[in-house]
Amino acid sequence: MTRASVVGAGMTTFGPHERTLAELFAEAAFKALDDAGATNDRIDAFYLGNTLGGMTENETHLAPKLATHVGITGVPAQRFEDACATSSNAFKHAVQAVENGIHDVVLVGGVERCTPETGLDTPRMTEIFASASDKQYEQPAGITFPGVFALLTNRHMHEYGTTEEQLASVAVKNHANGQHNPHAHFGKETTVEEVLESPLIADPFRLMDCCPFSDGASAVVVTSSDAADSFDSPVDVKGIGHATGTVPAADKESLTATQPARDAAASAYEQSGRSAADVDFAEVHDCFTGAEILATEALGFFDDGEGGPAAEAGRTALDGEIPVNPSGGLKAKGHPIGATGTAQIVELTTQLRGEAGDRQITDAETGLAHNLGGDAGTTLVTLMEARA
Amino acid sequence: MTRASVVGAGMTTFGPHERTLAELFAEAAFKALDDAGATNDRIDAFYLGNTLGGMTENETHLAPKLATHVGITGVPAQRFEDACATSSNAFKHAVQAVENGIHDVVLVGGVERCTPETGLDTPRMTEIFASASDKQYEQPAGITFPGVFALLTNRHMHEYGTTEEQLASVAVKNHANGQHNPHAHFGKETTVEEVLESPLIADPFRLMDCCPFSDGASAVVVTSSDAADSFDSPVDVKGIGHATGTVPAADKESLTATQPARDAAASAYEQSGRSAADVDFAEVHDCFTGAEILATEALGFFDDGEGGPAAEAGRTALDGEIPVNPSGGLKAKGHPIGATGTAQIVELTTQLRGEAGDRQITDAETGLAHNLGGDAGTTLVTLMEARA
Repeated sequence: MTRASVVGAGMTTFGPHERTLAELFAEAAFKALDDAGATNDRIDAFYLGNTLGGMTENETHLAPKLATHVGITGVPAQRFEDACATSSNAFKHAVQAVENGIHDVVLVGGVERCTPETGLDTPRMTEIFASASDKQYEQPAGITFPGVFALLTNRHMHEYGTTEEQLASVAVKNHANGQHNPHAHFGKETTVEEVLESPLIADPFRLMDCCPFSDGASAVVVTSSDAADSFDSPVDVKGIGHATGTVPAADKESLTATQPARDAAASAYEQSGRSAADVDFAEVHDCFTGAEILATEALGFFDDGEGGPAAEAGRTALDGEIPVNPSGGLKAKGHPIGATGTAQIVELTTQLRGEAGDRQITDAETGLAHNLGGDAGTTLVTLMEARA
Repeated sequence: MTRASVVGAGMTTFGPHERTLAELFAEAAFKALDDAGATNDRIDAFYLGNTLGGMTENETHLAPKLATHVGITGVPAQRFEDACATSSNAFKHAVQAVENGIHDVVLVGGVERCTPETGLDTPRMTEIFASASDKQYEQPAGITFPGVFALLTNRHMHEYGTTEEQLASVAVKNHANGQHNPHAHFGKETTVEEVLESPLIADPFRLMDCCPFSDGASAVVVTSSDAADSFDSPVDVKGIGHATGTVPAADKESLTATQPARDAAASAYEQSGRSAADVDFAEVHDCFTGAEILATEALGFFDDGEGGPAAEAGRTALDGEIPVNPSGGLKAKGHPIGATGTAQIVELTTQLRGEAGDRQITDAETGLAHNLGGDAGTTLVTLMEARA
């Protein structure tokens, strides 16, 4: 079953921007509308992802504010916040709304500012990012997200023998892809040596194992699949899985399984009638190199413990058997928290239309997006397909 | 058409609490589950409203955190933020999910801490509350929400001759109702004289025209109406309207119309096949006395300009023709921002079951909830009915 279709997609470049949230969002929204060939009077609901705006900008009630700014005042507008999975969840609700006839043509987008352009310094931003970790047990202990994912990755190294070189190979691949993405925060290649020589952040992660936090926005126009027939280049949503897991990390049954990703993937595969073997490429949530390795196992691309060797062997490269993060991923494209989920949908749309230029996956027909929040306590997995 | 049903409802007392967000939420959630006669393994999705947790508690990613705390880990969990209309919007999405067969039995709730128990002082909390106003035009001018609603109310006084005594009569009525509500922040009566002698906050509002900000939580269990048959005391959702308007206030076509309330009410009436004349009682968003008067006109209970005289004449009293805010409203019951929307649904459920004790509306068959966000730039209107 086709559930809904993306008929327009747009995003800003990711990286430092000297612009307001409203200005950033408007660029992405108008690009998405232009891409759809739609004017804003066609939009009958608005689904917004923004994670940190209260803390970073003293901005709440952003959905009607941004709706006003892009000329879609009056429609039902809602803001979602689910840590780094924020705008994927907005997208899920938009898809559910059009497939159930609640709305016809909706705008979904995410926007965030995280760089020093906010006027906030690194200690304050670090505290803000830590808001997604457990308040009672994790925040007082001073564990921030490099530490959380370092715990998961260290356990993976212990159980399966995953190496620092394998982690580094993820960064090298994603930077190689990102150089072909004009929207990427980082447009340059790196090497395993450069990664391994970068400063240690949280063992085993070095600076170059970590994604940057970026400013940016992304947006898509979503319609029912029937309504999509009247648009030029629809791409179909076949399934969206959404699952959560225990927070804090210490209470998880397994640190390496990222169970919500497995549950969400199983749901997306079941909804779409597809399996991991059918997926031609994936955008996964590589906030840290280790997170990508865990994700490729949780999604069923590789057996548990095989993610590291697979990355090192080039099996996830642009010309590999299952290309992962052709956009450059969070690692090279950047990570404006609330904009990341819909940016993955933008990349899926671009690839499935065959419009990805130098980073185009050959014969891309089925794409998957994996977007996690917090310590992987939230995960959404979306499966999309090109029209025949 | 019956869209969905509330089969369980619970809330904490509203007021200062020396407890964490998780503890507050759990009390409301377990009360709602107990009231439904359901165990937490029946819950297959979670819809959370929380507005300020990032700023007040350094807490994001609250949906899976609170899900873990109440033992419903694993299910899709999402947090909504739409200023003071936050948990009504969570409720809308929960209703849409069960009526479209996406989920069967879901938990919806809101939680917030706003009092000095947060450790934050009044200047900081005032800045936080102002986050819902426009960042570019309103925040720099120093206009906070008493000022925003004072502008709307002053215009109403100018156009229709609404008086300070009429405003005060809203406070008197809501305090009279709130004394019968064991969950209310304020349990005492007041008089027109006491209101008019209280300190001026933002002309024409005096202290006693303003609702307090509270700590508290509220929750309901929602099912499809078919599934509701197996529960003891279901109350049916007949319609939910949701509309937004232009932000900032200066750009609104009319300050007194609160157009989103009119649009949301029209939608809720159309969905339910009911009109204002069919409504037996209403919970409305009386963040300030003037807001209640504007709401009773926007909802169609009174002609424009008649809201003030109607309140003064007792037409909205507990024994009046259209009782408004039998719970005491935000004014007397209190206003823990993200918990207010679902608390209105709790009151509708309690009244429609005939379980409201000394504040019970006689023959209450149709109830309406009106919950606004920001400068009324978001409004949700929900219409619920008792089972025959």
